[in-house]
Amino acid sequence: MRFYDCSTAPSPRRVRIFIAEKGLDIPVVQVDLRNDEHLSEEFRKLNPWCTVPVLELDDGAAISEAVAVCRYLEDAHPEPPLMGVDARDRAVVAMWEHRFEIDGFLAVTEAFRNAARGLAGRALTGPDHVEQIPELVQRGRRRVERFFAALDAQLAHQPFVAGERYTIADITAQVAVDFAGWIKMSLPAECRHATDWYGRVSQRPSAAA
Amino acid sequence: MRFYDCSTAPSPRRVRIFIAEKGLDIPVVQVDLRNDEHLSEEFRKLNPWCTVPVLELDDGAAISEAVAVCRYLEDAHPEPPLMGVDARDRAVVAMWEHRFEIDGFLAVTEAFRNAARGLAGRALTGPDHVEQIPELVQRGRRRVERFFAALDAQLAHQPFVAGERYTIADITAQVAVDFAGWIKMSLPAECRHATDWYGRVSQRPSAAA
Repeated sequence: MRFYDCSTAPSPRRVRIFIAEKGLDIPVVQVDLRNDEHLSEEFRKLNPWCTVPVLELDDGAAISEAVAVCRYLEDAHPEPPLMGVDARDRAVVAMWEHRFEIDGFLAVTEAFRNAARGLAGRALTGPDHVEQIPELVQRGRRRVERFFAALDAQLAHQPFVAGERYTIADITAQVAVDFAGWIKMSLPAECRHATDWYGRVSQRPSAAA
Repeated sequence: MRFYDCSTAPSPRRVRIFIAEKGLDIPVVQVDLRNDEHLSEEFRKLNPWCTVPVLELDDGAAISEAVAVCRYLEDAHPEPPLMGVDARDRAVVAMWEHRFEIDGFLAVTEAFRNAARGLAGRALTGPDHVEQIPELVQRGRRRVERFFAALDAQLAHQPFVAGERYTIADITAQVAVDFAGWIKMSLPAECRHATDWYGRVSQRPSAAA
């Protein structure tokens, strides 16, 4: 098994934190995104979407998409559970993970990729040329503000995003909050529940991943 | 248990097909999206994101996000399996489901919601005012073309999106193809593998859902 990572990139960090929480030791291959290694013919054979993370299994199957990689690791290494403990809980975790991927992680991505000079023509991940759209920078930033507020509301009545336990939903939200730093946005002071939560998840050893 | 649906909407159709494939009989509440019932105070209490599908469990928990609702139904009613049969297979299914949600379903959504007159100020789902961005119409359409090509490539060497079995990944892709009809796009003739697959999945009784 090999984990294709890029140590500076937020998307594979979701999996890095998941691996750290599971206490797993998986050989890592660094993919040099800065020099477009993910767009090379060789990497494209592994993952035609040209993204990291990718988990290559021993039979050669390449699993991409952060949530799918985590799904594999959760099934193969159930302890500690990070994707829910029963049918209801698994659904609640999946709901929040998905919602904060869209509203949080992808909102930051929208603001970032449509603004960064080095990403001209690469406004969406993947192999295709996609022009930046300046209006998406402001739209993305407004969406991030709403994400912060939604995260705060969710944490007003429970310690973690999906309830009493730390889960993949916390990881996705935590990585989105840190990624927001790339566009110079951070949790506003009035979001005190989210700020308290952020302090707690950031103190977990996995946050260094 | 109650399923909040809108019988004309593509997003809850993903769950309708899933329910039909499982052979389940779940009481349905129709939400009148056309008259903004999803934006009402009452519905907002159930689902603050103002979206369908929502599955309300017997303890009152409201599960939104199509993939999370399906996750619950898969765990509660494992047969027939629609989200994979072992760790590797579940990861492959999750990868394709997620990718074709983003590249297919959300690409059509982007083209549709940024063009439809009746959705001015509602370019994204949810309760917030989001202006339409005309450039996203063409971007969305180009993404749908690439989705069709990716779907065709995937089906060139196997009968279903994630392998030998019909799964939730087929459902997401099938609903995206049908949703593309809303923006007057359909599988091009040269996508013969995808066209053959589309004919097969459309003949399943669940396609009427």
